Amino acid sequence: MELLVVGSVALDTVETPLARREEVLGGSASYFSAAACRFAPVSLVAVVGQDFPASYRTLLAERGVDISGLQTAAGRTFRWSGRYHANMNQRDTLSTELGVFESFAPLLPERVRRSGALFLGNIHPALQLQVLDQVEGVRFVGLDTMNYWIAGTPELLAQVLARVDLLLINEEEARALTGRYSLLAAARTILGRGPRYLVVKRGEYGALLFWQDGVFCVPALLLEQVCDPTGAGDSFAGGFMGFLAQQEDLGPLGLRRAMIHGTVMASFAVEDFSLDGLLQPDAPAIAARGQALLALMQLG
Amino acid sequence: MELLVVGSVALDTVETPLARREEVLGGSASYFSAAACRFAPVSLVAVVGQDFPASYRTLLAERGVDISGLQTAAGRTFRWSGRYHANMNQRDTLSTELGVFESFAPLLPERVRRSGALFLGNIHPALQLQVLDQVEGVRFVGLDTMNYWIAGTPELLAQVLARVDLLLINEEEARALTGRYSLLAAARTILGRGPRYLVVKRGEYGALLFWQDGVFCVPALLLEQVCDPTGAGDSFAGGFMGFLAQQEDLGPLGLRRAMIHGTVMASFAVEDFSLDGLLQPDAPAIAARGQALLALMQLG
Repeated sequence: MELLVVGSVALDTVETPLARREEVLGGSASYFSAAACRFAPVSLVAVVGQDFPASYRTLLAERGVDISGLQTAAGRTFRWSGRYHANMNQRDTLSTELGVFESFAPLLPERVRRSGALFLGNIHPALQLQVLDQVEGVRFVGLDTMNYWIAGTPELLAQVLARVDLLLINEEEARALTGRYSLLAAARTILGRGPRYLVVKRGEYGALLFWQDGVFCVPALLLEQVCDPTGAGDSFAGGFMGFLAQQEDLGPLGLRRAMIHGTVMASFAVEDFSLDGLLQPDAPAIAARGQALLALMQLG
Repeated sequence: MELLVVGSVALDTVETPLARREEVLGGSASYFSAAACRFAPVSLVAVVGQDFPASYRTLLAERGVDISGLQTAAGRTFRWSGRYHANMNQRDTLSTELGVFESFAPLLPERVRRSGALFLGNIHPALQLQVLDQVEGVRFVGLDTMNYWIAGTPELLAQVLARVDLLLINEEEARALTGRYSLLAAARTILGRGPRYLVVKRGEYGALLFWQDGVFCVPALLLEQVCDPTGAGDSFAGGFMGFLAQQEDLGPLGLRRAMIHGTVMASFAVEDFSLDGLLQPDAPAIAARGQALLALMQLG
C-alpha cells in the first residue's frame, strides 16, 4: 500500500570529529522517505522556503518519492546545525532556525489522502491532529514525538496517541511520557493510551517492540565506523513503515519483521552524511545486511 | 566438568534509592559461585578475614559450593560500600577496604587443580598467572579484569590474555584495552591477543559474544524493578561458565547457549540484595526465564 509521511525537510550543517557538511538535505521526512522508498511508494508532505535547492527536490523525486505535497512558502527553509562528540553518541545543537517550518500547516494533496499507511513525524501535535483529520481509510498510523511536546502539549499529544496504531520513540521519551523508569511499566502505560504497538529506540543498542502479548528485541548492527548519526531514528522509522506498507502484514509477526528492516536502514543512514547512506546501497546490499542482523540474533 | 573460580569474597554495604543493606555477602567469587552452582559443581578459592561470618560460609557450603579453598587470614575481610543513583545504572563507591585481600596469594587445594573449567575473577594479573601455573589439564579458562589493571599492569595482563580461552569484560573496558571505539575493531584486536572468545557486557542492554567467525547478541531481560545491580556481571559470568561446565560444548554453539544462561542469572541477581536473587529461584523458574529471553529474540 502507499505510505504518506508528514514531517520536516531541513538543511543541516553537521560537524563530526572527522568532517563537516554544510546545508545538506536533512529533516525527519527526508530521512524517512529515503529509507521507506526502498520498500514502498512514499508521498511526502512538508514545507520548504524559496531558498530550497532544486537539486534536493530532484534527489527525492528521482527516487520515486512523491513530492507533490512539498509546499514552498515565502521565507527560509528550516535549518539545523549540530556538532557530534568524539563517541558520536552525544551532540550539541549549535543552532535551530525554524524559518517557514514555524507556520507550517500540513495540507494533504487530494491524491495522498487515501494512503493506506501514514507516519506522523515529530511536529506539533496540533498539526498531527490536522493530518489525521484529512486522511481517509488509513489502515496503519505511526507516530513520532519528542520531549518538547511531551512536556509542553501533553493533552494534545494524548489526543493524537489515542488515534494511532504505533508510537515510535526513544527510551528517554518513553520514560518522560509515562513517568515510569522500567520500560515494561512504561510500555504497559503507553499501550493503555491508544496505540497497539510501541517501538522504543535505544540507539547503538537497538530497539524494542512492545504489543499486548509480547516484546521483541532487535540489536543494532555493529559498524566499523559511524560517520554521522543524524537521522538514524527517522531512517529506522522509514525502513520500518516502508516494509509494513510493502508487506501489508499489520500483526505482531509483520511488525517484528519490520523491526529488522528499520534497523538495517538506520545502520546504512549513519555510515554517510545526509541521505547518502540510504540511497547508495542496492537491493542485494540491503538484503545482505538483513541477513547479517538475523545472524547476530541466531542462537544456533 | 568441575568449575573453579578464583576471585574476591567481600562484605558489601549497599545503598539504593529504596533500601540499604550492611555487610552482606558480596565479592566477585561469591556472586559467580552462587550463579554457577545452579548448573555445575563449583570450587571457590579466595581469602577472608577472621571476622568473616560463619553463616556466610554455611550459605555457600549448603549450596554445594566447595569452599575448601576459602582461606582465612589474620585481619579484616575485604569490604566495599557503594550508593546507587536513582536510575540504578550509576553508582558511587563510598569506601573500599582491601583488608586481607591486599596480601591474597591464591593457593589451590590439591583437589581443585584438575578442574576442567577455570574462571579468573577480577584480581591482580600477577595472581591470575599464579593460578594458571597451578592448574593441570584445564580445558577452558575464562578471564575478567578491569580498567585499573588495563591501565596499571598492561604487560602482565597481556601474558594472562595469551593463556585464556575467553575474556569477559564490559564495553568501556574493551575500548580501554584496545584503544578502539568500534566494538568490532576492539573485538578483532582482542581475539588477536590470545582468547578464542570475547564477551562484551552491556549492562541493561545485554551482551555480545565475539569469535573468529561470528558475533552473537543477547538482550538483557526487561525487569519490572531492579533492586540492586551489584554483582550482575559476576552473576552473568557464573551462569555462563556454569552452563559451559555442565554441557561441555566449548564451541560457538555452546557459548551462544551459555550467553542465555549468563543473562538469566544476571537478571535474577539484580532483583534482590547480595546472593539472595541467585539462590531463591528453583530450576523451573530458571528455565522459564530462559524461555522468556528466547521469546524476546524470536522473530516469528
